[in-house]
Amino acid sequence: MAKEITSRSEDYSQWYLDIVNKAGLSSNSKVRGCMVIKPYGFAIWEKIKADLDRRFKETGHVNAYFPLLIPKSFLSKEADHVEGFAKECAVVTHHRLMNAPDGSGVVVDPSARLEEELIIRPTSETIIWDTYKDWIHSYRDLPLLINQWANVMRWEMRTRPFLRTAEFLWQEGHTAHATRKEAEAEAVMILELYRSFVEDIMAIPLYTGEKTAHERFAGADKTYTIEAMMQDGKALQSGTSHFLGQNFAKAFDVTFLNEHNKSEHVWATSWGVSTRLMGALIMMHSDDEGLVLPPKLAPLQVVIIPVPKANDEINKVVEQIMDELKSKGISVKYDTDRKKRPGFKFAQYEMEGVPVRLAIGKRDLANGVIEVARRDTKEKSSVPLEGISTYVEQLLEDIQQHLFDRAKKFRDGNTFKVDSWEAFESVIEKGGFAYCHWDGSTETELKIKELTKATSRCIPLSPLPQFEDDGEGTCILSGKPSKRRIIFAKAY
Amino acid sequence: MAKEITSRSEDYSQWYLDIVNKAGLSSNSKVRGCMVIKPYGFAIWEKIKADLDRRFKETGHVNAYFPLLIPKSFLSKEADHVEGFAKECAVVTHHRLMNAPDGSGVVVDPSARLEEELIIRPTSETIIWDTYKDWIHSYRDLPLLINQWANVMRWEMRTRPFLRTAEFLWQEGHTAHATRKEAEAEAVMILELYRSFVEDIMAIPLYTGEKTAHERFAGADKTYTIEAMMQDGKALQSGTSHFLGQNFAKAFDVTFLNEHNKSEHVWATSWGVSTRLMGALIMMHSDDEGLVLPPKLAPLQVVIIPVPKANDEINKVVEQIMDELKSKGISVKYDTDRKKRPGFKFAQYEMEGVPVRLAIGKRDLANGVIEVARRDTKEKSSVPLEGISTYVEQLLEDIQQHLFDRAKKFRDGNTFKVDSWEAFESVIEKGGFAYCHWDGSTETELKIKELTKATSRCIPLSPLPQFEDDGEGTCILSGKPSKRRIIFAKAY
Repeated sequence: MAKEITSRSEDYSQWYLDIVNKAGLSSNSKVRGCMVIKPYGFAIWEKIKADLDRRFKETGHVNAYFPLLIPKSFLSKEADHVEGFAKECAVVTHHRLMNAPDGSGVVVDPSARLEEELIIRPTSETIIWDTYKDWIHSYRDLPLLINQWANVMRWEMRTRPFLRTAEFLWQEGHTAHATRKEAEAEAVMILELYRSFVEDIMAIPLYTGEKTAHERFAGADKTYTIEAMMQDGKALQSGTSHFLGQNFAKAFDVTFLNEHNKSEHVWATSWGVSTRLMGALIMMHSDDEGLVLPPKLAPLQVVIIPVPKANDEINKVVEQIMDELKSKGISVKYDTDRKKRPGFKFAQYEMEGVPVRLAIGKRDLANGVIEVARRDTKEKSSVPLEGISTYVEQLLEDIQQHLFDRAKKFRDGNTFKVDSWEAFESVIEKGGFAYCHWDGSTETELKIKELTKATSRCIPLSPLPQFEDDGEGTCILSGKPSKRRIIFAKAY
Repeated sequence: MAKEITSRSEDYSQWYLDIVNKAGLSSNSKVRGCMVIKPYGFAIWEKIKADLDRRFKETGHVNAYFPLLIPKSFLSKEADHVEGFAKECAVVTHHRLMNAPDGSGVVVDPSARLEEELIIRPTSETIIWDTYKDWIHSYRDLPLLINQWANVMRWEMRTRPFLRTAEFLWQEGHTAHATRKEAEAEAVMILELYRSFVEDIMAIPLYTGEKTAHERFAGADKTYTIEAMMQDGKALQSGTSHFLGQNFAKAFDVTFLNEHNKSEHVWATSWGVSTRLMGALIMMHSDDEGLVLPPKLAPLQVVIIPVPKANDEINKVVEQIMDELKSKGISVKYDTDRKKRPGFKFAQYEMEGVPVRLAIGKRDLANGVIEVARRDTKEKSSVPLEGISTYVEQLLEDIQQHLFDRAKKFRDGNTFKVDSWEAFESVIEKGGFAYCHWDGSTETELKIKELTKATSRCIPLSPLPQFEDDGEGTCILSGKPSKRRIIFAKAY
């Protein structure tokens, strides 16, 4: 099986597609840019979703559901939103099909044209703020801390499974507050929630910070972002949290009476992560043998394979191991399929990124040992059966930590503090993050992009700890003064 | 608060809308027929979803996700499906907006017309079977037991929150099997899974059975259904499970090599329940004071209210009760809000259908008792504080059982075995289920509908136990021979 995967050094982009395909994560559909998320891929997404949902609820948020379709006129209400937001979206114009007069199938019924076209939501700020107008009257109705799990659609020209698809799944939080301070604190709190989830559960180290004005969400006053570095040194924006000021409240006329009975516009945030996280997860840890998953997100954490086949004695030992692992909350499967050889199974579970593989044969049993293989390093060792479940439990924790450490080491090793245009170009050229001074103007930002294809990724909230902080400086391109350093990189 | 609800006797239909509105379950949106599911309503749906999802997984199903949009041509492939299925659906014709030349907002870009129109899924058989063609090659790939949680859209003319909306949320299972027998067994197994969930968790008694040919799902060989009786004696179809034969496999050319290396078409089922279940739940148990929820689906099971307000002594006792209830897995809230009077709170939690309310004041404390009010019967009693958590735990079980028993008593009391047309008309007229003989022809079925507005609800798999089984008979309308009885009723 592994042979079927293109190696990273040969073609990084094809390697990613091969893994998505061979590990059974998604497949293409007949609808342009829309993928099918296959059961194995969806099982990983369900684990991501469950953990995030718990964190949202623990921080006081509740779930709700808003309509899929948005009246076209809503998109015109917030000036920046309509100007800056992609206009590539799916437009519903009719509400009925009819049999074709020539019997060839069905056609659109021309008499069923909608009075106003409807847009499949590319994001839900507009329809939600139109709704909040009815829900918010007094300071007693605030804060409103609502999240929605939904599908959204943006008519992307170039798509790649999980990373950029026309339809994708996501969560979008939309909160309403009585004060600027409270809304700003919410946006920052969610940034930290995302960071903690992605680093602790997905084992992906992040740089967090604020987006420049140019890279900000259309309609936001501030956009916070979490940025990861993939194995090719490119950045992947993995989630954003926006402080929306009073922009949407003003556009949709959402006011409340404060404690002094005065009318004020409501303050807002919105924030989201999507199935794009799946893309980050796959790209971050996998290797030329297939998918590698952090144990905390692996639908199956341990597989046990009899070598060459099961017998009563082996079954008995394995059943005890399974009971012990299950009682520790570890998911485990015993693969006794006689139609497949052990070697084939080994390759299959490697492809699927199962973190730990146990293999046991007659001789192992006689020696009181079992073979333990870890997916991340592909190391194998013979381990005593006595205490094996405790060993495996610890190993899963080690793998989780090792994946994070490995990724962090790679990321840190490819983040460079640069102070000359030549050094900047060289870092971007070979693939990596440039940590440099910038004069703060959109003009310079666009010039940098034009010259190198690198975009500003984030202005870190505090200086990167691995470098000595040298305060102010001069812009890498224009030579003008700069207050602090920013991260530039090529991005997905 | 309760005064704001129209009584059932006055206007049953308005009563339902009032509860949906006042209990905070859903609200209308600006998009025709599309509702917003509010946080409290969504919390109930999340409980429904979690329980069903567990049952699906326990029976070997896995979740996946298929595209929202379906190429128009797919809908023409299965002859019955296109003929019988509602053609009222949302049609996407364009993929871009542009700024209006006159600066008035955004308009559809006429140059961004799709080559083939896309339909927002009204159900996913077609796109799923188009995908299964790539996934199924050999008997080793079968069975395929896949479920999807998704939003779907049908352009309904008359809508009511939860019961009939243009967009709704549902799960749709789509399974593929090597043999007819296996697929038929799956469809029946799911019928039983639905019955058990709706009766045991939602406390709604059901009649289960098969649909007539006329009421069958378009493209199915058999449709099984679960039917509930609402408080006005009308039927609510609450879920369906279809045996699809080889119809979709033939339409989408999905074959597999069997164990003897011969090519065969795959056998199929599909099945679903939707947010319509929310409508059934609300209509089934609620009263003129508001929502009534079975404890197993109540987001909040117990509320504790200090009367008239909290103090240290009361807080201490309540905290212990809360700890004990939580350790039993019971959800509980202590409402110490000083801005609202106890009477206001009582009415609010009654409106929201919280199953058990505990109220405690100084005098109760002195007497070592607490006031317990159950929402279903509105009985109040003074109960010793000693052992109160065990008492409440048992009370929640009693309420769950009582709601089911009350609904079953009502349903049985309004199900009539009828053997004359006059008796039939009278049952349908006053609201109830008629259990009668029918000649099996669509012609007669349509005639009955024309005369009385009653439709066939289901042919029970076995005779109803509350009546003596009298075998064959003659049709209520045509007088022609009938093999067995069927249920007719007016329906939502």
